Amino acid sequence: MSSSAVLNEMEATSALAESGAVGWSVVDGRLRQEFTFADFSEAWAFMSRVALLAESSNHHPNWSNTWNRVVIELVSHDLGGITARDISLAAAISRLG
Amino acid sequence: MSSSAVLNEMEATSALAESGAVGWSVVDGRLRQEFTFADFSEAWAFMSRVALLAESSNHHPNWSNTWNRVVIELVSHDLGGITARDISLAAAISRLG
Amino acid sequence: MSSSAVLNEMEATSALAESGAVGWSVVDGRLRQEFTFADFSEAWAFMSRVALLAESSNHHPNWSNTWNRVVIELVSHDLGGITARDISLAAAISRLG
Amino acid sequence: MSSSAVLNEMEATSALAESGAVGWSVVDGRLRQEFTFADFSEAWAFMSRVALLAESSNHHPNWSNTWNRVVIELVSHDLGGITARDISLAAAISRLG
Repeated sequence: MSSSAVLNEMEATSALAESGAVGWSVVDGRLRQEFTFADFSEAWAFMSRVALLAESSNHHPNWSNTWNRVVIELVSHDLGGITARDISLAAAISRLG
Repeated sequence: MSSSAVLNEMEATSALAESGAVGWSVVDGRLRQEFTFADFSEAWAFMSRVALLAESSNHHPNWSNTWNRVVIELVSHDLGGITARDISLAAAISRLG
Repeated sequence: MSSSAVLNEMEATSALAESGAVGWSVVDGRLRQEFTFADFSEAWAFMSRVALLAESSNHHPNWSNTWNRVVIELVSHDLGGITARDISLAAAISRLG
Repeated sequence: MSSSAVLNEMEATSALAESGAVGWSVVDGRLRQEFTFADFSEAWAFMSRVALLAESSNHHPNWSNTWNRVVIELVSHDLGGITARDISLAAAISRLG
């Protein structure tokens, strides 16, 4: 699979499963997952790790936070859809803690 | 002004001006501002400072980030609107950098 | 105990035990603990939580990091020794994760 | 210059100058710089950016912080001295803000 190929929903779902990424859905052409923590401190610690992953892979999420809740959406803006880069970042996030 | 009183849009706008908070709008019953930075690293540094302010004041934003862009919304969820706590956090964020 | 009273080693050790702070030693007039993690990402997540605690309590550690290792030292610089503020921050750090 | 060659002090100083890294000294076989900020929040924002650089380059500093003060030391532990990786990270840190 070329890393720049846009994946349709079935391909993305299959690639997620192969990569070991857990808990992600395909919603409106993006990978999406909502994470809930005990409090802001735990949520922020998680975000701090995701920030390191994002910068290291030069691929950054669309994400939001409200206290103990973090919603992450992954899409390859420049390519107009979900690509292998999103699958890879999703899998790396899933491997955290 | 009681710190738990919900402010209407005119009161919020006036309180923002008095507090020295710059660049905030009242949108859908929340204080809102969009910040743009040179890149993710600068945006993340700003978010790291806002996280310290939020935890210190025990008042946390609804916020989102996409690479160099940070959108912050402030509302007192438990009180159902904008209160002095939001004005105060908005002013503290405005005093950063 | 006054929060500004400097504690000697025996008092500090006793206060640590009462507070539920685990793993701290009194070394050269400071509370000290070394933490080891799986990698930098985990160490950084921990530091991010400690930063929130420190700023919230307006009491900041002397600390260092080398990849997966974090050393935290707590002392009340302005009071010239270990005080209740250090015990309190030590206990809060011990309650993380 | 091979990226794994250990640089002596003269070579390191020359490489720093060429790379545009400013304010670094060679101390005890390490690149070293002390940074001072207005307060902890500013110091922490800087550290958050350095953390992103470190993880992205898979090269991590020995560093310490006390409130508004950050000391960074760079050395290639596995190679037993200062190498091009340290020069490169020093230059990247110097390019921040």
